Amino acid sequence: MTLELVSKTQCFDGSQCQYTHRSSVLDCAMRFSVFLPSQAEKDQRFPVLYWLSGLTCSDENFSQKAGAQRMAAELGIVLVIPDTSPRGDEVMDDPGYDLGQGAGFYVNATEEPWRAHYRMYDYVVDELPSLIEAHLPVSERRAICGHSMGGHGALTIALKNPARYTSVSAFSPICNPMACPWGEKALGAYLGPEKSAWEEYDTTVLMGRASEQLPILVSQGEDDPFLEEQLKPEALEAAASAVQYPVRIEYHAGYDHSYFFIASFIEQHLRFHADLLLAHE
Amino acid sequence: MTLELVSKTQCFDGSQCQYTHRSSVLDCAMRFSVFLPSQAEKDQRFPVLYWLSGLTCSDENFSQKAGAQRMAAELGIVLVIPDTSPRGDEVMDDPGYDLGQGAGFYVNATEEPWRAHYRMYDYVVDELPSLIEAHLPVSERRAICGHSMGGHGALTIALKNPARYTSVSAFSPICNPMACPWGEKALGAYLGPEKSAWEEYDTTVLMGRASEQLPILVSQGEDDPFLEEQLKPEALEAAASAVQYPVRIEYHAGYDHSYFFIASFIEQHLRFHADLLLAHE
Repeated sequence: MTLELVSKTQCFDGSQCQYTHRSSVLDCAMRFSVFLPSQAEKDQRFPVLYWLSGLTCSDENFSQKAGAQRMAAELGIVLVIPDTSPRGDEVMDDPGYDLGQGAGFYVNATEEPWRAHYRMYDYVVDELPSLIEAHLPVSERRAICGHSMGGHGALTIALKNPARYTSVSAFSPICNPMACPWGEKALGAYLGPEKSAWEEYDTTVLMGRASEQLPILVSQGEDDPFLEEQLKPEALEAAASAVQYPVRIEYHAGYDHSYFFIASFIEQHLRFHADLLLAHE
Repeated sequence: MTLELVSKTQCFDGSQCQYTHRSSVLDCAMRFSVFLPSQAEKDQRFPVLYWLSGLTCSDENFSQKAGAQRMAAELGIVLVIPDTSPRGDEVMDDPGYDLGQGAGFYVNATEEPWRAHYRMYDYVVDELPSLIEAHLPVSERRAICGHSMGGHGALTIALKNPARYTSVSAFSPICNPMACPWGEKALGAYLGPEKSAWEEYDTTVLMGRASEQLPILVSQGEDDPFLEEQLKPEALEAAASAVQYPVRIEYHAGYDHSYFFIASFIEQHLRFHADLLLAHE
């Protein structure tokens, strides 16, 4: 596996980069973004925060709008921002913004016509970290965070792989995709009608099956237009309460679903992860 | 004159807003963005930093990419971000990205077919501040800042109106538009062939005519691809030196012309202005 550098821009004394590579898991060319803090010492290795974006996003939205590089530079954390689905002319798509390209939902599809390429779960859990750890100055300490569909991705991936991450956080996550329109549409298409398969990708179910507990922080705006119909943080609260999983859910009056909300609280999320990412280094 | 609120999003406990209004100066509908810090007290009035954007930008680029709201909220400064030209189907345009809509150059055009609408100088100096000061919780203390074409706009406007601003700063400004391709094309189109008219909008000329000195900060990336052909900060240095105008020009190794450069140093610019904007309040 090789990485091709597409762009490199200095930012807060570090580097904001875009890379492309051929993904064997997704069977297509993929692009991702990375922020690398300035290296104080040769051979310095940084822990990594993976950021999973929401519907319609690419690797660029978080890179350009969240203002995360300032604190990542200060704390010494690498940011890795994958795309939200496989891409390209040879990859199946759907006219809806909430299915197909830009809407991979971080699952491994089992159904036609999606199964050939839509394996974002394996891509984010295995292939991308292997690539990052082989080619960039990073340690094997990882945390994961995301927004909306990406918040769902971060929570489900961390709950299924607690040994791979120090911590997980989410902005406005889709907490219970089995019971909301976005999730029903996407999980139905990618996984078929059998709901036992959907349970593998639903935070409220996975929380009850967790054998190990990770620190979790969730931030939710109270003026988010998707709050009641799509996001359902109360289902996450109930699931966590039922198994005594300590989840910190913070509600913020007046905030909506946009990157202006993320920008307002990204420093808190980075400091939350840094306390754990940097603790044993 | 009335303002119509288009959008309002909470950000760092303040509000990121877009407004539209009918501009009598530009004879078209205009949109601009505003960031308002959270009001600690009723009737609190904030000083204003006007931000002038570069070629191809609207009011949204700085709002979404610079990360300026964090410090504006902390310091208690309102940000006002106008568009870069008149807009609309009835407004003359040009196929080039560097003339017409998105490229007003902050001048009052005297030539056909531009003179009917292209009066961004009067819009930024008079009409927009009058509107802001009539409708929003601001004081009459103003500073001005901009990027590239907007850096040229900020410097020329402040040099011609030192009593209206406490301070001026610029990222990667077009310092000597009379002697670079972008400026020659735009000033020629908007003002005609007579170069004495261009001098009214060239920082290097206006500096020699200044009767009053303002604090000026200029930030320039050394890896900016437009540095030599278009921006010419050395001409600004020479002009300032010739009349002993104290300009602080800071060169930053490795940085380019992008918003990643602006994001990296916007805190410094906001603190520079805050020291002056808040000094006598």
